Amino acid sequence: MVPSKRSAVLVDGVVLNGPTTDAKAGEKFVEEACRLIMEQVVSKATDISEKVCEWRPPEQLKQLLDLELRDTGEPHHRLLELCQDVIRYSVKTNHPRFFNQLYAGLDYYSLVARFMTEALNPSVYTYEVSPVFLLVEEAVLKKMIEFIGWKEGDGIFNPGGSVSNMYAMNLARYKYCPDIKEKGLSGLPRLILFTSAECHYSMKKAASFLGIGTENVCFVETDGRGKMMPEELERQIWQARKEGAAPFLVCATSGTTVLGAFDPLDEIAEVCERHGLWLHVDASWGGSALMSRKHRRLLHGIHRADSVAWNPHKMLMAGIQCCALLVKDKSDLLKKCYSAKASYLFQQDKFYDVSYDTGDKSIQCSRRPDAFKFWMTWKALGTVGLEERVNRALALSRYLVEEIKKREGFRLLMEPEYANICFWYIPPSLREMEEGPEFWEKLNLVAPAIKERMMKKGSLMLGYQPHRGKVNFFRQVVISPQVSREDMDFLLDEIDLLGRDM
Amino acid sequence: MVPSKRSAVLVDGVVLNGPTTDAKAGEKFVEEACRLIMEQVVSKATDISEKVCEWRPPEQLKQLLDLELRDTGEPHHRLLELCQDVIRYSVKTNHPRFFNQLYAGLDYYSLVARFMTEALNPSVYTYEVSPVFLLVEEAVLKKMIEFIGWKEGDGIFNPGGSVSNMYAMNLARYKYCPDIKEKGLSGLPRLILFTSAECHYSMKKAASFLGIGTENVCFVETDGRGKMMPEELERQIWQARKEGAAPFLVCATSGTTVLGAFDPLDEIAEVCERHGLWLHVDASWGGSALMSRKHRRLLHGIHRADSVAWNPHKMLMAGIQCCALLVKDKSDLLKKCYSAKASYLFQQDKFYDVSYDTGDKSIQCSRRPDAFKFWMTWKALGTVGLEERVNRALALSRYLVEEIKKREGFRLLMEPEYANICFWYIPPSLREMEEGPEFWEKLNLVAPAIKERMMKKGSLMLGYQPHRGKVNFFRQVVISPQVSREDMDFLLDEIDLLGRDM
Repeated sequence: MVPSKRSAVLVDGVVLNGPTTDAKAGEKFVEEACRLIMEQVVSKATDISEKVCEWRPPEQLKQLLDLELRDTGEPHHRLLELCQDVIRYSVKTNHPRFFNQLYAGLDYYSLVARFMTEALNPSVYTYEVSPVFLLVEEAVLKKMIEFIGWKEGDGIFNPGGSVSNMYAMNLARYKYCPDIKEKGLSGLPRLILFTSAECHYSMKKAASFLGIGTENVCFVETDGRGKMMPEELERQIWQARKEGAAPFLVCATSGTTVLGAFDPLDEIAEVCERHGLWLHVDASWGGSALMSRKHRRLLHGIHRADSVAWNPHKMLMAGIQCCALLVKDKSDLLKKCYSAKASYLFQQDKFYDVSYDTGDKSIQCSRRPDAFKFWMTWKALGTVGLEERVNRALALSRYLVEEIKKREGFRLLMEPEYANICFWYIPPSLREMEEGPEFWEKLNLVAPAIKERMMKKGSLMLGYQPHRGKVNFFRQVVISPQVSREDMDFLLDEIDLLGRDM
Repeated sequence: MVPSKRSAVLVDGVVLNGPTTDAKAGEKFVEEACRLIMEQVVSKATDISEKVCEWRPPEQLKQLLDLELRDTGEPHHRLLELCQDVIRYSVKTNHPRFFNQLYAGLDYYSLVARFMTEALNPSVYTYEVSPVFLLVEEAVLKKMIEFIGWKEGDGIFNPGGSVSNMYAMNLARYKYCPDIKEKGLSGLPRLILFTSAECHYSMKKAASFLGIGTENVCFVETDGRGKMMPEELERQIWQARKEGAAPFLVCATSGTTVLGAFDPLDEIAEVCERHGLWLHVDASWGGSALMSRKHRRLLHGIHRADSVAWNPHKMLMAGIQCCALLVKDKSDLLKKCYSAKASYLFQQDKFYDVSYDTGDKSIQCSRRPDAFKFWMTWKALGTVGLEERVNRALALSRYLVEEIKKREGFRLLMEPEYANICFWYIPPSLREMEEGPEFWEKLNLVAPAIKERMMKKGSLMLGYQPHRGKVNFFRQVVISPQVSREDMDFLLDEIDLLGRDM
């Protein structure tokens, strides 16, 4: 690689002839690492005899991993050892018994798409740099819009449901008063928005980030199943108006984070229409039910929304992150609201149709081609295959619910609507106890203690939380087609095994 | 895979026994796709005989690609063909002659890290789900903070320099008036911020998104090299105060997008200290110069900043996206400003030290482990190797500048400070013309026309833009260690070849 001294061009002591990368060695390293990834991650992903996690507390893990960044680099064989350690101590979110979050499992097709985009390293803002990925995004958005039930629309993939909700909040605000883009909120009346008391915490983050303020998020009370009560919504809108505030947005949730509840969209849409309010539906989690002819009724009325957040990286397993904000408006509202018209990127004198340069609809500049991984899975499975996944996850959820009802020591929080199954495990020592304060106080300690044991054993992972007056309970989430009723049985057996001495 | 009918458990017509994924076939598909990616993307990345792009106009590309999502899926061999098409028509941002954006080239180490994280599919919010990646992020942030010159600090990786700038703007606002988090901006005096007239367009996007309003971004005039003039800044701050506005933030730029200019941080810090204003430095592009003992003087004074945005995905080639916001404060300001305390995710009764659950510092919920890819490259090259990359890119830039000066028909816009070399190509027909309005009008058409030709030929890609009264000029950006002085020579030869008949 080093040129002969005779012909060398030197500037500031640096030889500038020829590349300095050793491509052959680099490629060999990538190949070896790919082999490792195939063996240690992909092939083991379906193996239930593997641990879900190899738990180490933070201080110990710091000792085990060689985290420090030094002046000199490490050789390839040492880097591969590091990779092995990273894999070893990482949680296997692909594992059939990882039920801890609203995503899980391994989709081979999205994985291939993700490898491709990492290798191609595109940024999706202009057609000249990302011709394929911009067209793919357009195709996927079009199809998602069709499933929402809109005739036309617009949208953008972005880094997370939280960000989608922010997009929607800002759009609704822009629609309410376009001047805010230039003039800001100073001097305006107090803007106020309404959302379910069970909504995702990103609504608060969004209100704070956008300068609206968390106190101007009105949480509307829910019924016993966690669904927003439309009459409560309407009452609060009147109340806010009376207090001189300016309502501009209602956010309904399709698939709440903890309970998996679906707000009654049709009735909420009625209220919004009566009051001229933007309706955003946070279907980040529940949107995937739209793929199922059997279950899409959960989102009945969603076509009446002005905007929808929907994350195919959750139940449709497209990989973190794959999140779309979809907008019914077709008057280029996204662009009007977000554009900054940077002349170095969005030149208007390009030789092609610059309406394909969609980057100015975004709050980002560089943006990842997240639509592509969902496109690949959709191509591979077809709509019917995606539908089957949703149907199976929800059938498995039903199975688990019935098993919980049958088993001693397990108690459902409520009949689920979706793939979140919330339940308590009541250990033998508490089963005869009167359900007074002492009982609940003791039960509150059970889920955290079992969680600790399961993580240290590495046999499975599922989440727990207290929630609106209810003491700590488990939230089981069913997603992956790799999961079967045997895993559901195992889950209950294992919790009982881990907790029966408590 | 289908169980015998006897033992089958059916719910809603779905058989729930055993997994439904064909793991063997899935793994085989991934292996075949990996081979394709290695052959068609990774191995060809260094091959200058390959085209940078295979240009097709949007309507034609739509015909060539089978974009439609159908009811039924496609077989593996067909999916591999689709992958091949996607690769074929995608721009090769890894190609040694892709100079179109502020990122380029292929780093084998970050690529491996990216394949790993795609396979492991983590989300970085809690230690229980992302033990390794949270510790890696901590280690990388610590080291970046050291290079800024702070004794301690905090930070967060996030999806883009634009988002980093938003984080900083919101932090500065929170510091100015913490009540805004809850109460919002309504009723407050007009907040106002100051930034260079050459700053990135995300400052406007941020001001609009955060409810501050684009009119409340004061653009401070720059000198002939594109650097903010501190005396102008101070004058504008006084002016704003006189008008009753409330200044809260100054954003300096280290490495502007078009010219690669560095604002004088020390003098700007003086002004900020005098006026008690938060100083944010957008070093998304220029921050990497901190790795070079020779070039870090460009950012002299950066340790006086309150926050810094720095994107290792640009000059340090960590892959889209790898962007850190760094904060000098160590009183947990990020957490205070951003937390929403979701009890389903950030339970306080976990069995480990929950101070490692850093997700509540983020505006996102799911978040990608972007620090990891930078960590891997740093591990592989060491600080010295990263320094060499920066030094070489800037030496190559010097080389190109000198060549431009020597060649007929090429004219530098100005002496660059960094790796952006801005220049005009003046075709023979214009070389004798008087430099009046007609000359500039005609010259304005040259870069777009050459760009069209280079893209249709696929021989290289670099950007052009008009900028602050200057007609369209080329912006060449030098990054990758794969690039050599031969590529610089080629660049000038090729532009001349494509444009000499104009």
